[in-house]
Amino acid sequence: VTDGAAALSAAEVAASVGGELRGEAARLVTGVAPLDRAGASDLSLLAGARYAPAFAATRAGVVLVGPDLADAPGPADVVRVVVARPHDALVALLPRFQPPPTRREGIHPTAVAAPTARIGRGVSVEAFAVIGDGADLADGVWVGPHCVVGDGVVVGPETRLVSQVTCYPGTVLGARVTVHAGTRLGSDGFGYAVADGAHRKIPHVGRCVIEDDVEIGANCAIDRGSIDDTVIGAGSKLDNLVHVAHNVRIGRHCLLMAQVGVAGSSRVGDGAILAGQVGVAGHLTIGAGARLAAQAGVISDVPAGETWSGYPARPHKDALRASAALFKLAAARRGDRAR
Amino acid sequence: VTDGAAALSAAEVAASVGGELRGEAARLVTGVAPLDRAGASDLSLLAGARYAPAFAATRAGVVLVGPDLADAPGPADVVRVVVARPHDALVALLPRFQPPPTRREGIHPTAVAAPTARIGRGVSVEAFAVIGDGADLADGVWVGPHCVVGDGVVVGPETRLVSQVTCYPGTVLGARVTVHAGTRLGSDGFGYAVADGAHRKIPHVGRCVIEDDVEIGANCAIDRGSIDDTVIGAGSKLDNLVHVAHNVRIGRHCLLMAQVGVAGSSRVGDGAILAGQVGVAGHLTIGAGARLAAQAGVISDVPAGETWSGYPARPHKDALRASAALFKLAAARRGDRAR
Amino acid sequence: VTDGAAALSAAEVAASVGGELRGEAARLVTGVAPLDRAGASDLSLLAGARYAPAFAATRAGVVLVGPDLADAPGPADVVRVVVARPHDALVALLPRFQPPPTRREGIHPTAVAAPTARIGRGVSVEAFAVIGDGADLADGVWVGPHCVVGDGVVVGPETRLVSQVTCYPGTVLGARVTVHAGTRLGSDGFGYAVADGAHRKIPHVGRCVIEDDVEIGANCAIDRGSIDDTVIGAGSKLDNLVHVAHNVRIGRHCLLMAQVGVAGSSRVGDGAILAGQVGVAGHLTIGAGARLAAQAGVISDVPAGETWSGYPARPHKDALRASAALFKLAAARRGDRAR
Repeated sequence: VTDGAAALSAAEVAASVGGELRGEAARLVTGVAPLDRAGASDLSLLAGARYAPAFAATRAGVVLVGPDLADAPGPADVVRVVVARPHDALVALLPRFQPPPTRREGIHPTAVAAPTARIGRGVSVEAFAVIGDGADLADGVWVGPHCVVGDGVVVGPETRLVSQVTCYPGTVLGARVTVHAGTRLGSDGFGYAVADGAHRKIPHVGRCVIEDDVEIGANCAIDRGSIDDTVIGAGSKLDNLVHVAHNVRIGRHCLLMAQVGVAGSSRVGDGAILAGQVGVAGHLTIGAGARLAAQAGVISDVPAGETWSGYPARPHKDALRASAALFKLAAARRGDRAR
Repeated sequence: VTDGAAALSAAEVAASVGGELRGEAARLVTGVAPLDRAGASDLSLLAGARYAPAFAATRAGVVLVGPDLADAPGPADVVRVVVARPHDALVALLPRFQPPPTRREGIHPTAVAAPTARIGRGVSVEAFAVIGDGADLADGVWVGPHCVVGDGVVVGPETRLVSQVTCYPGTVLGARVTVHAGTRLGSDGFGYAVADGAHRKIPHVGRCVIEDDVEIGANCAIDRGSIDDTVIGAGSKLDNLVHVAHNVRIGRHCLLMAQVGVAGSSRVGDGAILAGQVGVAGHLTIGAGARLAAQAGVISDVPAGETWSGYPARPHKDALRASAALFKLAAARRGDRAR
Repeated sequence: VTDGAAALSAAEVAASVGGELRGEAARLVTGVAPLDRAGASDLSLLAGARYAPAFAATRAGVVLVGPDLADAPGPADVVRVVVARPHDALVALLPRFQPPPTRREGIHPTAVAAPTARIGRGVSVEAFAVIGDGADLADGVWVGPHCVVGDGVVVGPETRLVSQVTCYPGTVLGARVTVHAGTRLGSDGFGYAVADGAHRKIPHVGRCVIEDDVEIGANCAIDRGSIDDTVIGAGSKLDNLVHVAHNVRIGRHCLLMAQVGVAGSSRVGDGAILAGQVGVAGHLTIGAGARLAAQAGVISDVPAGETWSGYPARPHKDALRASAALFKLAAARRGDRAR
């Protein structure tokens, strides 16, 4: 179903994953698809016993199967490759099948690039993109359709802004960064001083710095710093709809899952993992390697390496214990009433 | 205040809703507005006793009133239509008053459509839209301004992308789908394999499939599948800022309210209702017709037809009982200290 | 580091903040930066003892320091300005250093404005913006790149839509409003009536009204009303990724922090503060000046002036007491088991 970047024979598949070939060695596959949607030129996998019915009816050309399901009933002409961990094997093969995304070098005639912008070699700027005064696009940068790269923004080599991305002035992107559709970088932080009963805006002059090898999902919002910078550390990955406030520092190789919010001036240590919908209050420190369970509401510092959960977030073991005690209490009260 | 698609007389209003006309039968209304903003050509409603002051001062032409408020003091020249459920009656009449949205057929001269794209009959493509190589727009499709329809994307008949919508390659939309402004369909899922201390991206080759009659709100993000597809079932409705991760399957006629997040590979059964800010962890099954209360944090399977709430989510009755027990305990401790 | 709008001497800085000058009065600063990134022409601040090492190594030209750190070891050529509250002093000076954003008056040649739109004096419409039939842009309005201003939308004087903002038909913006990138105003609310097992869309004819001096962050979604209007009161400020449903009324001078969601027809009183990720259920009233703690899940009315937290939200003192009682209970149970 996918347009294969290349064709692989069943023998090459087996050799590549260290599996045992059962069937026609010369069978060619050019794409990857699930059992129920695969055709004769697709590689698929039998990921567990619950998929046995789909396997029995599949039209896939080659299927990766685990040792326990090596003899599962299936069509006679399906080539099987028996391998210890079929899913991992498929993931390892995926890059061979993914076509490189279509990319046209140069500046699309509809794009508007300021004459003062610096455009490196091998840069692509797609339809209707806007490149501001003094922006600096390094070699190999790829700016997708409808992106807005503000005045003076710096974009490092091989970085890709997928589409409809906004980089406010004050944004600095490193090398090999990917920013998905609709994400806003460097917007003003939420800072006001109360004067005469109204909220007066505090100017923001800090930067929004995205370091090398970061990937940011769709429709996120990462503010610029007020005086200091907002920084996303090298190698960190952000999922969709994540909010990062002004002056926050996210460390290196962190994972922030969907809909996480980190309030102003908090710091997240290297390798920390924030699961979906986690909220971190302002001016806190999350230690390196800490893990925050989904929906955790963090209102105090979290030590390095610990796992916290709940609201207000506490060490996960304590939170589990408290939750268990509560439900026992409720059950006991109910028993009292029943007596 | 609204530009009426048509003019209705008070007699026609009364007949249409099965109400009792009190006043000038020939009075014409062309729009709908609340009591405090309505003018002589507007239809309005008196929705309850707390709106009596607004009714007393209204300049509306015709007002729907319930039997209990049929004689509420009001301007002599306001025509009343007495009906059992005024709000439902007004909702039923709304389509008569809503002007059809302005739509210009054809491809706007500023849009960029690949020569290899297939454009059906009666298609509208608005300003600055981008249609990729091999994209397929069925009859009656309406692509709003600044939308990006990626290479090979399939859009079914009468489907509308309102504006600034992104469809990544691998997205397939059914018939009569509406996607609101800024929503991203088919973005890469959040999948990484750790290698040498860094997160290596797992390619995504599954599709993002939106079935018939789905409506998706503004600024949502729905990822494509990794190997399998992500699917939003026919007739389901998603509110604003919803996140749906890779490989998720949402059933038919589900409601996902604002800011809901569903993590990877989870399945939501037909007719389930997920209230605002609900989070569902990965690889779970939410049964058909289940209801998840607002902000529920679901970390285990939910049986069909049940209502769950809280974090970690439990059956709603248990959660209520636990919450009551806790507050009684806290009060008792306080009483102890007071003694 | 920032391009200064003006140069200030150290003497002028000291006079402006009422501080004591220690060092060269004529030293000029043209920008603001944190200690570790500042150069000779930057103003910085020593915000507390933990920044003493950064101060010792700074290359800043002028540094604001508090009385307690006035004699902290630092480079001899750094000019110090001793002032009671260095951070407040810096915030007060920031507007002097922020360059005015680059703005080009007139309609960019790539923008598409309907001939029936009314364009005031001194209006800027940037690249690829779309202005609909009968839209009304008052004097001094600034419409950024890729914005879509729908048919009949009214935009008040000096209001700025930063970029990629959508205003659906039915949107009315007051004076001096700022709307950040990717925010959607006036999208259809989430309203369906069930008929024959399917969800039938209820038309929305109410407006989305944004009053004077409101600022709205990036990637928010504010629906239009169904019959009544959705209103954001004058002077209120919304952070990023906020959702406001149909018919909601937010009062004046409220603060809604990131990822807040307010469900349909709820009312939030003047001056209320909703911290990050708060959810308010439908048809509720939040009193004036109420404060909702981060992640609070509100399912009942909140009296004016009170602070509530948790899910289901309760008065903050009660919630704290309950949380403390629970963890004591869990510890006691643990003690029982240990004995």
